[in-house]
Amino acid sequence: MKLLRVGTAGAERPALLDQDGTTLRDLSGLVTDIDGALLADEAALERVRAAAASGDLPVIDQGGLRIGAPVARIGKIVCIGLNYHDHARETGAEIPTEPIIFFKAPDTVVGPDDTVLVPRRSVKTDWEVELAVVIGRTARYLDSVEEGLAHVGGYAVSHDVSEREFQLERGGQWDKGKNCETFNPLGPWLVTADEVPDPQTLAMKLSVNGEVKQDGTTADQIFGVGEVVRYVSQFMTLYPGDVINTGTPAGVALGQPEPKPYLRPGDVVELEIAGLGRQRQQLKGA
Amino acid sequence: MKLLRVGTAGAERPALLDQDGTTLRDLSGLVTDIDGALLADEAALERVRAAAASGDLPVIDQGGLRIGAPVARIGKIVCIGLNYHDHARETGAEIPTEPIIFFKAPDTVVGPDDTVLVPRRSVKTDWEVELAVVIGRTARYLDSVEEGLAHVGGYAVSHDVSEREFQLERGGQWDKGKNCETFNPLGPWLVTADEVPDPQTLAMKLSVNGEVKQDGTTADQIFGVGEVVRYVSQFMTLYPGDVINTGTPAGVALGQPEPKPYLRPGDVVELEIAGLGRQRQQLKGA
Repeated sequence: MKLLRVGTAGAERPALLDQDGTTLRDLSGLVTDIDGALLADEAALERVRAAAASGDLPVIDQGGLRIGAPVARIGKIVCIGLNYHDHARETGAEIPTEPIIFFKAPDTVVGPDDTVLVPRRSVKTDWEVELAVVIGRTARYLDSVEEGLAHVGGYAVSHDVSEREFQLERGGQWDKGKNCETFNPLGPWLVTADEVPDPQTLAMKLSVNGEVKQDGTTADQIFGVGEVVRYVSQFMTLYPGDVINTGTPAGVALGQPEPKPYLRPGDVVELEIAGLGRQRQQLKGA
Repeated sequence: MKLLRVGTAGAERPALLDQDGTTLRDLSGLVTDIDGALLADEAALERVRAAAASGDLPVIDQGGLRIGAPVARIGKIVCIGLNYHDHARETGAEIPTEPIIFFKAPDTVVGPDDTVLVPRRSVKTDWEVELAVVIGRTARYLDSVEEGLAHVGGYAVSHDVSEREFQLERGGQWDKGKNCETFNPLGPWLVTADEVPDPQTLAMKLSVNGEVKQDGTTADQIFGVGEVVRYVSQFMTLYPGDVINTGTPAGVALGQPEPKPYLRPGDVVELEIAGLGRQRQQLKGA
């Protein structure tokens, strides 16, 4: 299923994209929201599935409708750094021998087409298309890649917006450049894991002002989704509704020759992952 | 005021410690919880203050009562690294020229006397007594130290438990060793900012199995509370109920000669900050 949340920011209601790929159905009579509690509730998901199959759910008028992030009440966002061979190469970094972990705060999450703010005094705001994994079952000290995959509730497109000066040149840890306001557009859909039989074959693309910058595939991930979930669960407990941004392929501004084409107010970023939908953000000054 | 949350984990109710320092009063008839929404609501805080002064609030029986973390629904926990001169020296690090920022997930928070779990395969679990700052008003691009202080809602004792191998020897970013389950005991109280006129004069102490390990003062902070809040607000928006762990003084296991006395199951850690109360945790295996 393709689950989503629509409406004004902070007042989104749960919805479903029909199999026809265009009709939106209202789920608010069936579930209170799309969140970790729903993902962990097999019976509730089954009810949604049955209602979807029945074709009886009310249709939502899409005129002027905003799409929010497809998961509410995200507990934490764990990010994997340098997780694509081609991206590690372009930044001049060594290929990591185990996953690099950093964090984004859930308050950085916005809808897939919401405005992204270039922070004040920023000169190095960069893009990163990423496959987001949404946890469906509590994951703690998992033993195998298979177990890792079995704890995934769904997938979404994630934009891990990054300020490279804040991240790399301001003393210490990457989190400083990863947590600016609006720095994590998510969605449009949460695609349940059963519709993504192999998360390591997904084409992903990002363009800025119509020019393709990233054109990759999750096949190039150094640590695949199942291994990432297994690995992270050795260091922290993952709860339903937690999100893992699994890294970005080559083509970010940081990897380009000088002068690097960092984002500026007015720029338009479009990104998509095959089967997971498409985002479009306009940049503005904070 | 000294606000707290008491009861079983996940079902705490709001309470107040009387001026006598021993009587607990039930606030659940007055406010739904102690959280960012309450801290941002001057009128509600005023009602609590008036009720506290009246002496009419119901007394809570403390027999067998668990104390939870004093803030519910924490949005994010921002941590400042190497923020005491003596701690930076003991770890052999340079004195930072600007604050180092890393993150703990809110799901690491437990009550002040709850069990702390030594992670599986951990051999370097370490302690860190810290002054926690709880944000009271949304802070975004603040201009001065004074403004920073004006956005603080209150203070608490925080235990920034850390796994040094995970943090420093497993590739990349510190977050990997800071987010294990139960790694952030908080409380017992949220002491409102009006009762802490100068947060840079607080004695802080931590002992392991009765032996004093850390004996410091917030006077030794490299970046004081107001500056930390101002600084962090340049890189991310701080919301009411967000927490900043402002760093630890010297005396952690990492700073000791070999063999370093890292924590093991059975150990008991006690910590306190003057005026903010006292914590006591027993360590167990995860």
